[in-house]
Amino acid sequence: MSDLRSIGVFDSGIGGLTVVKAVRDLLPNEKIFYLGDTARVPYGGKSATTVQRYSVEMTQMLLGEDVKAIVIACNSASAVALPNLEKTLSVPVIGVILPGAKAAIAATRNRRIGVIGTRATIKSGAYERAIHSLDSKIDISARACPLLVPLIEEGWLNDELSDRVITRYLEPMVRERIDTLVLGCTHYPLLADAIARFLKSNVKLVDSAWNCAAAVQDLLNRQSLRAPAESSGGLEVALTDAPDNFLRVAREALQLEIGEVQLREVMHGAPAL
Amino acid sequence: MSDLRSIGVFDSGIGGLTVVKAVRDLLPNEKIFYLGDTARVPYGGKSATTVQRYSVEMTQMLLGEDVKAIVIACNSASAVALPNLEKTLSVPVIGVILPGAKAAIAATRNRRIGVIGTRATIKSGAYERAIHSLDSKIDISARACPLLVPLIEEGWLNDELSDRVITRYLEPMVRERIDTLVLGCTHYPLLADAIARFLKSNVKLVDSAWNCAAAVQDLLNRQSLRAPAESSGGLEVALTDAPDNFLRVAREALQLEIGEVQLREVMHGAPAL
Repeated sequence: MSDLRSIGVFDSGIGGLTVVKAVRDLLPNEKIFYLGDTARVPYGGKSATTVQRYSVEMTQMLLGEDVKAIVIACNSASAVALPNLEKTLSVPVIGVILPGAKAAIAATRNRRIGVIGTRATIKSGAYERAIHSLDSKIDISARACPLLVPLIEEGWLNDELSDRVITRYLEPMVRERIDTLVLGCTHYPLLADAIARFLKSNVKLVDSAWNCAAAVQDLLNRQSLRAPAESSGGLEVALTDAPDNFLRVAREALQLEIGEVQLREVMHGAPAL
Repeated sequence: MSDLRSIGVFDSGIGGLTVVKAVRDLLPNEKIFYLGDTARVPYGGKSATTVQRYSVEMTQMLLGEDVKAIVIACNSASAVALPNLEKTLSVPVIGVILPGAKAAIAATRNRRIGVIGTRATIKSGAYERAIHSLDSKIDISARACPLLVPLIEEGWLNDELSDRVITRYLEPMVRERIDTLVLGCTHYPLLADAIARFLKSNVKLVDSAWNCAAAVQDLLNRQSLRAPAESSGGLEVALTDAPDNFLRVAREALQLEIGEVQLREVMHGAPAL
């Protein structure tokens, strides 16, 4: 059995392209339809209610594209909207939190894990819940890092200023002797080199993009939803607002073939969950 | 003649409270109804079309509050939406760009003016147009500074990291020998001390909040819209999403009596301009 339909991926903006990159590398035969809500980006500072509403609207738009599965490539949306979407959607849905939590547990030796993300993700406590549901004895040190996304969007990926901001955010975690750090925002893999420079080899980085892609592969296999091995795969990108400078940064940093970007209006008044 | 109705003020988020603070100080008898579009903040990185649509929706919501005049306390929205709103609204409307431009021209001696703001404001070229419409011989050096808003929202107002970011953004302007700098984003007055420390006394700062308040006073006087001298004034604040950390930062830094914050849903499908 195989399934030629696309995988739908949505994110608050363009950061979710790090997940797309990982899925493309791991599953080159799959078609991906990516939807970035750039008209309302970022979700990271907004309330759970608002992020839930936006997530329902985005998944409805993806269902309109006849996707076979949906990936929430946004930690903020995964953190607060996934449980309800899992219950109500007609296709399987996967977030970035649980795959990241599993990978962190597999990586830690001293059972002290750090988690960084946006305000919404950290405030939701979703990583703590996911990690503790698998192993209640792990110490977690979580911190919101709202400066990192704008630094990445400036393209200051290897830059003394970014190094200083990273030091400010991560020094307390190092003092708490974490040995594993979850990059709990899909933008952050673009700063992975700078973060690794600060942490040296003492701390393992868990990239939620890569672990999410592995979970997608797993899901497609289990549910016989893989595209045929001979199909060529591809990527369509749609945004709710015209792309800006960051699309260029992401395209270059990720070496991703994006092609022409479509513009879509947000469908309001999606059915309530 | 006097008019007891409120002045409506809107902004993409909470930064516009710097304008409210200036209006409260200058016009203590006036009632103000403030509407912050925190569900979609920031406008600064979004396209002109999207910011225009959001601005129409916000002004329609303010008209529903029976306001006597509308202040667009957001540089991004003033930059791209004001011309159409001026033509279509039934009450007078005032932005932050023209008052800032006039104040900058009054302040400069060597006719070299710097302008900093969000991506949307700088890309719009609105300050250049406003300044050159008044004096075409002035040299303008403009720069988008997308890190400043998140630094302010972290509350890092007097902080070595903010100083470094300010140096990064402003050093090229100092080399171009500007003698006046327009703070073209309503958040920026909260960093005015740090910016002044870097610029020393060589460069005058033009605070668009204060100049906008003076323009409001002028408008109310001209159109006989002032509240009676015996009325006590006041401030109501409504947001389209639940307030976060930054409301606390703004409240403390501005010493503003805010009271209970109302939550309002965005009215979609406002009439097209």
